[in-house]
Amino acid sequence: MQTKPILIVGSMAFDDLEFPVPVASPDVRSAAESDPRATTSFKDVVGGSATYSALAASAFAPVRVVAVVGRDFPEATLETLRSRRIDTAGIERADGLTFRWKGRYHADLVNRDTLDTQLNVFANFRPRLASGYGDSPLVLLGNIHPELQLEVLEQTTKPELVVADTMNFWITGEPKTLAKLIARIDLLIINDEEARLLSGIHNLARAAKEILSRGPKGLIIKRGEHGSLFFDKDGVFAAPALLLEHVVDPTGAGDSFAGGLLGYLAEQGKYDHHTMRRAMMHGTAAASYCVEAVGTLGLSELSRENIRQRVERIRHLTHVGEE
Amino acid sequence: MQTKPILIVGSMAFDDLEFPVPVASPDVRSAAESDPRATTSFKDVVGGSATYSALAASAFAPVRVVAVVGRDFPEATLETLRSRRIDTAGIERADGLTFRWKGRYHADLVNRDTLDTQLNVFANFRPRLASGYGDSPLVLLGNIHPELQLEVLEQTTKPELVVADTMNFWITGEPKTLAKLIARIDLLIINDEEARLLSGIHNLARAAKEILSRGPKGLIIKRGEHGSLFFDKDGVFAAPALLLEHVVDPTGAGDSFAGGLLGYLAEQGKYDHHTMRRAMMHGTAAASYCVEAVGTLGLSELSRENIRQRVERIRHLTHVGEE
Repeated sequence: MQTKPILIVGSMAFDDLEFPVPVASPDVRSAAESDPRATTSFKDVVGGSATYSALAASAFAPVRVVAVVGRDFPEATLETLRSRRIDTAGIERADGLTFRWKGRYHADLVNRDTLDTQLNVFANFRPRLASGYGDSPLVLLGNIHPELQLEVLEQTTKPELVVADTMNFWITGEPKTLAKLIARIDLLIINDEEARLLSGIHNLARAAKEILSRGPKGLIIKRGEHGSLFFDKDGVFAAPALLLEHVVDPTGAGDSFAGGLLGYLAEQGKYDHHTMRRAMMHGTAAASYCVEAVGTLGLSELSRENIRQRVERIRHLTHVGEE
Repeated sequence: MQTKPILIVGSMAFDDLEFPVPVASPDVRSAAESDPRATTSFKDVVGGSATYSALAASAFAPVRVVAVVGRDFPEATLETLRSRRIDTAGIERADGLTFRWKGRYHADLVNRDTLDTQLNVFANFRPRLASGYGDSPLVLLGNIHPELQLEVLEQTTKPELVVADTMNFWITGEPKTLAKLIARIDLLIINDEEARLLSGIHNLARAAKEILSRGPKGLIIKRGEHGSLFFDKDGVFAAPALLLEHVVDPTGAGDSFAGGLLGYLAEQGKYDHHTMRRAMMHGTAAASYCVEAVGTLGLSELSRENIRQRVERIRHLTHVGEE
């Protein structure tokens, strides 16, 4: 069975991250190893939805990225991506500065405040698919303006699976464009608060029904440290999150989840309900590696075998034998 | 195999409940059937930890209750308990008013504010085990003053399994007595915020390790709509909550969970790790019936077969087949 290539569009960014507790410095993998006097701020951390998703997906499948970076973005990072069979021909280097996000996490390492967003080269970005990208069988439309997500979709030729992520900002600000997008995709990935906002329904079971009635074949609702839910016409699946002893930086967890999920589906080449259940666990495994280190460090050497080991742990976490 | 009797000590109460959204009146089972003009307040709802736990446990096993009620507590309710093989000989009727709790739920039906607490006859309650209760093989020490929980424990003769619940109020106010209790029990059941408060550790995996080092063989951490976690020397288990379309009143969910859990263990007569995993699912099933109606109505006719059906749904929710 040939693993299929995945087209990923999204942001590539520098993140400035602040943590109110001592965390590991970027060159150690676990908070347990950190010096309590260590700084709690990290500047110029390479991030962005496309970066996280591509790194996670590349543990499974060849990846093609559509994104834009500025002249300040390190060539070494692009080299790292290429060393993981990530095609960077679709990454445009524009004359300006790379998109930048600055955020401060609360002590729970779940809630966070956005302190600053600088769109920079992202402000005028129009995604153009590099040669040979249009026939990609799997497409991940990362969280960017739904108009741009639609533009990418229109440049593809009958993909087998189209997955999109979005956020509060577009749900509130671009409801019509988003509705058009949602009607055309196979799978929508959002978090619980976004599902409530999008549907206007607090109860997640009913919110999911309402969202599925708008067109997508499947819906994934992410609940952070509480795991994730998958809904389609064949039922509901609840994937637990791993109980990690050392969560360092949750930035990119959702994007890594999506990357791992699509990677597994690309490898399997099928998208039925039961394959989706297993794909959720592979996405969860990818996200678990992401949050154990600052930025993309937890993903930079992620292997298929690493994923397999964590999937076994996740499987064991909810396994119930017969009486 | 003979199902073993369960001794339950806890509160019996009148609850005054306020909901900020229209909910079902007590004589309908689902919010879907409710009149949106219906009142959102319910007064004199029979509640209390012992009541909820005993009703849930009685779907599995004979139950013996130790509690106190006032002269205003309806004899008909005691009659209902007796009709479900719940022994009420240990329920003392004191000269005064029954314990009363008044609470207001937020729109999320998760968070709530306590508006009033009247201890009434509970203020001078000293639990005394009725004749024949002392040799109960399973003991559930519901959430009351840890001094009273210890008094009950001292009146028992070598129970096979002692389970205790507690809350923020005792963790903060009675740390020494609570520590003494925790060192003597087999299983502690608390929620995630209580686990963090008790251990002083935010991360739940590490908080659980710390709490287990204080003596109990097992620890259950409840996470409401996100399910629950079980920790012991043999590993970790994550039970999902059912995705219910109509949650009406979460009061008593945790007590119903404990009752269903002990009921299953009493039926099985063993307490190993894998039996505990299944017990968690049976507790989850009991709690799911509880929250679908106001007060104890969802439990008043709960059968073993009802539980079995929901356990199948819970099992399906996390089931993952082989590739």
